Amino acid sequence: MKMSELSERSGVSAASIKAYQREELLPDPERSSPNQARYDGNHIDRLRLVRALIDVGGLSVAAVRNVLAAAEADIPLDWSMGAAQRAIPGSIDLPELPSRGVTKVDQITKDLGWMVSHDNSGRGMAARVVDSYLELDHGEFLSGLPEYSRAAAIVADTDLATVALQPSRARMSETVVVGTVLGDVLFAGLRRTAQEDAARRLYSGYQS
Amino acid sequence: MKMSELSERSGVSAASIKAYQREELLPDPERSSPNQARYDGNHIDRLRLVRALIDVGGLSVAAVRNVLAAAEADIPLDWSMGAAQRAIPGSIDLPELPSRGVTKVDQITKDLGWMVSHDNSGRGMAARVVDSYLELDHGEFLSGLPEYSRAAAIVADTDLATVALQPSRARMSETVVVGTVLGDVLFAGLRRTAQEDAARRLYSGYQS
Repeated sequence: MKMSELSERSGVSAASIKAYQREELLPDPERSSPNQARYDGNHIDRLRLVRALIDVGGLSVAAVRNVLAAAEADIPLDWSMGAAQRAIPGSIDLPELPSRGVTKVDQITKDLGWMVSHDNSGRGMAARVVDSYLELDHGEFLSGLPEYSRAAAIVADTDLATVALQPSRARMSETVVVGTVLGDVLFAGLRRTAQEDAARRLYSGYQS
Repeated sequence: MKMSELSERSGVSAASIKAYQREELLPDPERSSPNQARYDGNHIDRLRLVRALIDVGGLSVAAVRNVLAAAEADIPLDWSMGAAQRAIPGSIDLPELPSRGVTKVDQITKDLGWMVSHDNSGRGMAARVVDSYLELDHGEFLSGLPEYSRAAAIVADTDLATVALQPSRARMSETVVVGTVLGDVLFAGLRRTAQEDAARRLYSGYQS
């Protein structure tokens, strides 16, 4: 199909498609002549993936490029997951080491028997939040860390089970990216619905 | 203290402090004369809170203003939590109703016996992700929704227990804001550490 049809079928403007091509987010089209590019279903699928990561996952175009490149690199799948995680931009500043947050997070993951690399991007994210709780004089949040970790293990096991279902390495990589980026938003959404229910039970005298 | 000392003690530049004043993020200083503003410890605490929401929580200045105004409004606490949630910008487009994602999320929360308002911001977030999974031909993620919901309930109960610990209504409001914004980042971080451990167990032949 031509660019006009690709735009119509994917719902993405031709200008955006061209921008994604410049960022190398799309496979090259077939060219029967220099001015005649032909696109296929793979381009539609890829555009849907890119748009979901931007519109729903909140990533920038540059972040999408980095995360897809990392996930698709020809490396073992557990490395691929770490590379994809690191490519998702922490919009946050990581803690300067050593910090109390890092010590606390390392202690908790150690107590749970988790093997976590020093450069795991989540270790820095969690540690930075713990440091903030302490700086803001909200150390009482730390008593919730074991329950947060228990919930994180449930979600992570669910995530990996979904990856294991996939029929090919390429599909596994895509699942890692989609599940990591959109899964954060899914969980944040479900957390807010659960919070409303929990708040009503605690504060309104209703019982659900 | 003067502006220069406030800047030094809070680690926030005078230019940023003035910008936050224009956005009404800080209480007014005492003025002994039109050119002599005096700040106190409340200003330092507030600056730390604003910086944590921006630097760690990833909020914009405008979002910080909205979320603090919402949480501090003189309304029942469970409303306050909802208002704070809605003020946190979904960087995501909510689904057009009706959507399969909304139906799916409503079914799951109903099965769990949760009471969730139609305008709960998390309902739209979760539904939008489910719609994306379906559009991307990754419907297999939906089989993980019950486990995600179970984990979300653990986190929400932990969140509400932390709010209930607070000694005053003002402190409860602050806890709602801090816990909602930074809690998303904390959970995302712990999820990534748990994923690394789960991936290693599944794919590397190591046992932790």
